[in-house]
Amino acid sequence: MKIAVLGTGMVGETIATKLVELGHQVTMGSRSPENEAAVKWRESAGSGAFAGTFSDAAAFGEVVFNCTNGANSLQALRLAGADALRGKLLLDVANPLDFSRGAPPSLTVCNTDSLGEQIQREFPAARVVKTLNTMNCEVMVKPALVPGDHVVFVCGNDASAKQEAIKILGEWFGWKPGNIVDLGDITASRGTEMALPIWLRLWNTLGHGRFNFQIVKA
Amino acid sequence: MKIAVLGTGMVGETIATKLVELGHQVTMGSRSPENEAAVKWRESAGSGAFAGTFSDAAAFGEVVFNCTNGANSLQALRLAGADALRGKLLLDVANPLDFSRGAPPSLTVCNTDSLGEQIQREFPAARVVKTLNTMNCEVMVKPALVPGDHVVFVCGNDASAKQEAIKILGEWFGWKPGNIVDLGDITASRGTEMALPIWLRLWNTLGHGRFNFQIVKA
Repeated sequence: MKIAVLGTGMVGETIATKLVELGHQVTMGSRSPENEAAVKWRESAGSGAFAGTFSDAAAFGEVVFNCTNGANSLQALRLAGADALRGKLLLDVANPLDFSRGAPPSLTVCNTDSLGEQIQREFPAARVVKTLNTMNCEVMVKPALVPGDHVVFVCGNDASAKQEAIKILGEWFGWKPGNIVDLGDITASRGTEMALPIWLRLWNTLGHGRFNFQIVKA
Repeated sequence: MKIAVLGTGMVGETIATKLVELGHQVTMGSRSPENEAAVKWRESAGSGAFAGTFSDAAAFGEVVFNCTNGANSLQALRLAGADALRGKLLLDVANPLDFSRGAPPSLTVCNTDSLGEQIQREFPAARVVKTLNTMNCEVMVKPALVPGDHVVFVCGNDASAKQEAIKILGEWFGWKPGNIVDLGDITASRGTEMALPIWLRLWNTLGHGRFNFQIVKA
C-alpha cells in the first residue's frame, strides 16, 4: 500500500521503517523535501522509502499517519492540504506536548478539547482515528517488546475508519484483537492525550520506555 | 487509630466504612453536623463511627482522608482548618471533576497545576499524599475485586508521609507492595488526576467500575 508518514522524529521514523519492512511504499513528509532526517531515512530504509513535503506525502498516501510534533500538527496538516486528506484514513499518533515551560511538558490543548478533535474539526473530510499515542514508539510497532497483555486505544467518529485502523494495528503491528480498546468517538482523544503526564512520570520512574498500560477487569 | 474522613459521598462512605470495620474510630466530616448522609452512615456503621463538621473531623483525626467532591475540596479543607491539619498525613483521594458543562465532566484544574498541588500549597504544614484517585471506590479498599496485579499510585513531597500512606494502603486496604507505584513529588498529581478522562471512558465502555490500570513492563 502507499502510505504517508508525516513527521521525521523518532515516532515517524519508527513507524515509517516498520511499514517499509512490511513491503509498503512510504513517503515521509516534512516541511522541506531536503529535510535532513527524512533524506537520511530514505537512504537507509530501502527501496520502498521516499521523502517529500507534507503535501507530497499526503497526496501519495492512501493512508496517512500523523507523527508530527503535536504542537505543530495542525500547521503540518494544513501544508498537507485538506484535498489530499479527503476520505483518507488519518491515523493521529501525535500528542500536543508543550515544552515552552521546559520539561516535563504540559499539553497545548486538553480537558475540554484535544488535538484529535481539533484535527477532525479542521479536516472534516478526513477519517481521523486517534491511536498509539499512549506508548513509546518502539512498542507501537512491536507490542511484544512488553510481555503479556497490554492495550492500545482507538477512537474516532467513523466506524469503518476505526475498523481499518484496528486491522492495521493487528495485521501490520501485531496487536492482539483483545488488546485493542475502542473508546468511542474522537472526543475520547482527551482521555488518551491526557494520559501523557502520567506516562511521562512512569517513564521517569522506570527509567525506560518499554512499558505500557493494561486494563485489568473483573 | 482516630481517623477523619472528609466527604459523605460514595468514596467517603466506602473508605469510612472500611476503616470502622478494621476497628478504627472514624469521624465523617461534612458542612453540617446534621448532614443526612453522615448521620445515616454513623447510625449504620457501628460503634466506631462518628459524624461532625469538617472542623470536628479534622481535629479528631490523626490521619485525614480527603474524599470531598474535588471541585469543593479547598473550601472543605479551609473549613477543616489549617491548624487541625498541621503535621497530619492528608490522603487526598479527590478528583477535581467539573460537571458544570454536564457529563462527562472536565477538570476544574489540570495540565500546569492540580488539586493535589493546590492543597499542598494552601496547607503547607499538612503532609499531603495523593493516592487512590484513579479507580472506583470499591476497588480502593478491596483491590482483590479486580483479579491479578493492578496498581495504585502515590505521590507527595514528604517521604515519610508517603511511607505511612504505603503502609495504610498495604495493611488496611490490601494493596500488595509491588502494586503501589511511587510517582515522586506532588506535581505527579497532574498525571493521576488527568487519568480521569480515560478512566471515565473505560467505565463507559466496560459498563462497570470493577477495573483498574496495570503497568506492564519489560
